[in-house]
Amino acid sequence: MSQQAQQMLDRHRETLDQAVEAITTRGFWSPYPENLKKYPEEAVKGAPQRFEALLKQPFSLVKAPAVAGQVGAEVSPYGFELGVTYDQPEQAGLIKAMQAAMPAWRDAGAEARVGVCLEVLARLNAMSPDLAQAVMHTSGQAPMMAFQAGGPHAQDRGLEAVAYAWQAMSRVPATAKWVKPQGKHDPLVLDKRYHIVPRGISLVVSCSTFPTWNTYPGLLASLATGNPVILKPHPGAILPLAMTARVAQEVLEEAGFDPCLVSLVPDSAEAPVAKQLALDPAVKLIDFTGSSAFGDWLIDNARQARVFAEKAGINSVIIDSVDNLKAVAQNLAFTLSLYSGQMCTTTQAIYVPKGGIETAEGPLSFDEVAAALARAVETFLSDNDRACAVLGALQSPATAARIDECRGLGEILLDSEPREHAQFPGARVHTPLLLKVDASQRDAYGEERFGPISFVIATDSTDHSIQLAREVIGEKGAITLGAYTTDDEVAERFETLAIEVAVPLSLNLDGGVFVNQSAAFSDFHATGGNPAANASLSDQTFVTPRFVVVQSRRHGQPE
Amino acid sequence: MSQQAQQMLDRHRETLDQAVEAITTRGFWSPYPENLKKYPEEAVKGAPQRFEALLKQPFSLVKAPAVAGQVGAEVSPYGFELGVTYDQPEQAGLIKAMQAAMPAWRDAGAEARVGVCLEVLARLNAMSPDLAQAVMHTSGQAPMMAFQAGGPHAQDRGLEAVAYAWQAMSRVPATAKWVKPQGKHDPLVLDKRYHIVPRGISLVVSCSTFPTWNTYPGLLASLATGNPVILKPHPGAILPLAMTARVAQEVLEEAGFDPCLVSLVPDSAEAPVAKQLALDPAVKLIDFTGSSAFGDWLIDNARQARVFAEKAGINSVIIDSVDNLKAVAQNLAFTLSLYSGQMCTTTQAIYVPKGGIETAEGPLSFDEVAAALARAVETFLSDNDRACAVLGALQSPATAARIDECRGLGEILLDSEPREHAQFPGARVHTPLLLKVDASQRDAYGEERFGPISFVIATDSTDHSIQLAREVIGEKGAITLGAYTTDDEVAERFETLAIEVAVPLSLNLDGGVFVNQSAAFSDFHATGGNPAANASLSDQTFVTPRFVVVQSRRHGQPE
Repeated sequence: MSQQAQQMLDRHRETLDQAVEAITTRGFWSPYPENLKKYPEEAVKGAPQRFEALLKQPFSLVKAPAVAGQVGAEVSPYGFELGVTYDQPEQAGLIKAMQAAMPAWRDAGAEARVGVCLEVLARLNAMSPDLAQAVMHTSGQAPMMAFQAGGPHAQDRGLEAVAYAWQAMSRVPATAKWVKPQGKHDPLVLDKRYHIVPRGISLVVSCSTFPTWNTYPGLLASLATGNPVILKPHPGAILPLAMTARVAQEVLEEAGFDPCLVSLVPDSAEAPVAKQLALDPAVKLIDFTGSSAFGDWLIDNARQARVFAEKAGINSVIIDSVDNLKAVAQNLAFTLSLYSGQMCTTTQAIYVPKGGIETAEGPLSFDEVAAALARAVETFLSDNDRACAVLGALQSPATAARIDECRGLGEILLDSEPREHAQFPGARVHTPLLLKVDASQRDAYGEERFGPISFVIATDSTDHSIQLAREVIGEKGAITLGAYTTDDEVAERFETLAIEVAVPLSLNLDGGVFVNQSAAFSDFHATGGNPAANASLSDQTFVTPRFVVVQSRRHGQPE
Repeated sequence: MSQQAQQMLDRHRETLDQAVEAITTRGFWSPYPENLKKYPEEAVKGAPQRFEALLKQPFSLVKAPAVAGQVGAEVSPYGFELGVTYDQPEQAGLIKAMQAAMPAWRDAGAEARVGVCLEVLARLNAMSPDLAQAVMHTSGQAPMMAFQAGGPHAQDRGLEAVAYAWQAMSRVPATAKWVKPQGKHDPLVLDKRYHIVPRGISLVVSCSTFPTWNTYPGLLASLATGNPVILKPHPGAILPLAMTARVAQEVLEEAGFDPCLVSLVPDSAEAPVAKQLALDPAVKLIDFTGSSAFGDWLIDNARQARVFAEKAGINSVIIDSVDNLKAVAQNLAFTLSLYSGQMCTTTQAIYVPKGGIETAEGPLSFDEVAAALARAVETFLSDNDRACAVLGALQSPATAARIDECRGLGEILLDSEPREHAQFPGARVHTPLLLKVDASQRDAYGEERFGPISFVIATDSTDHSIQLAREVIGEKGAITLGAYTTDDEVAERFETLAIEVAVPLSLNLDGGVFVNQSAAFSDFHATGGNPAANASLSDQTFVTPRFVVVQSRRHGQPE
């Protein structure tokens, strides 16, 4: 192993050991602080200026093989053009260079690779304030979320993938001596070697809303197991991954490896390259986050590759009964508002019996429940500064247009309205749209309506709510399921529903934890068991298919 | 957990722990003796009569839901009809019954399921002599092989899969308490539960040559992880799996579970049902061993399922130089003869430089090497009783026909000849055909020629041999690769070749271990990394995709 890689592993060994422990015990743990105050003051305060300094010019990596042109047309959802341009490599030349780099990376072994991955994560962590700027001005996330989700939480998910990869690789011994007794004769003795062999080139096709969070698991899982990684960012959110690629390349180079083992292939909305990359015979692994249409296309067409896809779904909440509707409504108001419902975990369908629900203070009608939800959102967003700090901006104009398109799908409980951002007047800020529909209007609530668009659905009963959720999730999938009940027996039926549709359940959340938030090392993000995603971030199955074990054996001597 | 399942787990706990240790250290280990003398004398001696008693009548399981007819037309390759008939269930009714049985099996938990699996394996082990009869008279394997490969070695592979499943499931805690500090405020506390959730119905489509060995890994991996299993035997080798299913059903019933969790769907060559079963939306896992054509069909068409396929390949040996050609030739003669080359691991392509090779006793020409191989096979099979005890019988008349078809593909080094079996005059016994071809005749040696048909290929050099093997295996795959060299540098190139084409390497085998034999717990059978198989029996990736983890979380109290 290279001395540098060994030093990197040594430096982060305790973090690695703790991460492996964490994925097994699944309590709270993170090595990367989510509190800005834990970062050096200069790192935090200087971030906006450093971001400014990147704008309106080319962004350079350590190494970009086979450069064939320049792309880059990112526009901040806060209302200005980034003006950053990036090298775009030519596919065949890039893949040839990456394939040439692969054997040394493969042969370096798990320890060296994991050492490099841990160092990459540590450096990304240190520059979290800078990444936050890049995430904010591509995804539209508000500053605090861009910092937390784009920085430490994304790094947590990357480390989690490294921990799974390390655990899986550690279970394969480097060598073994096989000694088979032969009665009175000498035993048969074989000396065996086992090699962790990567699958090939790994392609990560990222989304515009969580450019780092959804990218790091695939990037790190593939890299740790020996696969060179092509990052194909969304054309609207290149910068966070360009910064990530540069850090990875710097660390690779310092450790004595070819920096192109992590390469960036940016493209434009007009000339997308993801399909062509995905069909390259050398590409054996694909991680994708985005639309169901493209995820399904990848699964159907990139048959030479193992595709890990997180797609769309109908995230749902079922309300049967509550102790305190106000607390529940406040909890859900935050979920519906956070990042304007642009999380893959945001609730879209809220099932409530049309006959109303029981609460500790007596029964409430359906309309009272629906009105309480609408009022809670309205109240929560009544302070415009707080609203902007929670909503962030809509990443895409298409999402703003979708709000308009959806207004007619039901009875408006709470209308969406644009908001003015104090600091960025051009910011695309819109409050949530909340609609009332009947259970029979499945065309309305049973299709993903990406953005701040949710439905309160009048059902015949909680049984009916469960049945509808089972059907809709069975068909379309979901990444989150919330449920509220004060009845233990009903709670068990929710648990069974969750098991049957393979969606994680959040039960009776009415405090400071939200159905749309998941914690690395403890919460499995998606299960891989329903149509919304064929993989979980992260579990064992997320890493084990990324390598095979090749052994050799030869006659040996007994010990 | 049911008391019975708990007792079963307790009874076999030490075996389980040792198996988990064995898959990690990968030395020699097996709990199931391959020596017949370790089995009760009566069990061994009475096996042929007990087999006789099964013939010419219906074979009954404990439970066969939705029976719609009878099938069964097995013919022993040793020359007689078995006359056993089996219930054939109707697909929709069977799957409905199995789905109804699934929740209790899922909810029983990993310990109960693994306890049942271990008890099934123990009972199968005790009846190994009986299974040997069934395997012999369906596959055509000779008695000793039918006993070892059909009995203890198959059980080893089943236990190996259980060990991987147990290891993978054990890494998911049942519960966790998540306590996130909030500075001066009370911490956020969530109580979490994690459920192992099976994928759905698992289908095992088996082959006629190794009905148990190739079935047990998929059967046990799926069953242990909670998936009901449909066994779909080859129409020519139903009995071994019917016996297996009956044992599994007996144990399931004793443990308080629905016996139909392991069900048998036999069919006939005239009316095959595998495709229809494979396309059932309820079928989420498919294990297959057999032709590349059908394996590829499954992968291309059964898109709702994860397919674990072991298909055909071009198993290869490269000879660069040897110490002792006689020992090498004897070793290869056994490989080419064992079970008449009907193993998925049998060598087909033997690459030798046309300029000859170096040996400890001086150089030998290509023709001398080829002649030594032919002579070694001839000598090894000169004693007819030994020949029959090694060759067994050809499972299918098509294999005998293929020998005839292939005679013209090259220059005959050793012709195949039929042999008379002393005990079974109708047995289909044929010795190997060994052909000499030029490297340019890739159409001859580069297609799988299933059965006792091999090629000695004249190449320009060892470099050329490596290049050809890389190309042929890259295109067609392989499950085994043998190589011979006395040069350490060349040995490392063979190791690199093995890594690059993802085939296990056996180097310089010239004693009592053979390239076509692999040992459970130590040798990974196939890698899943080349076209011959997309899965390895068994590794982590063989089990982890068979379940997902579904969690729930709710507010809790700090401990």
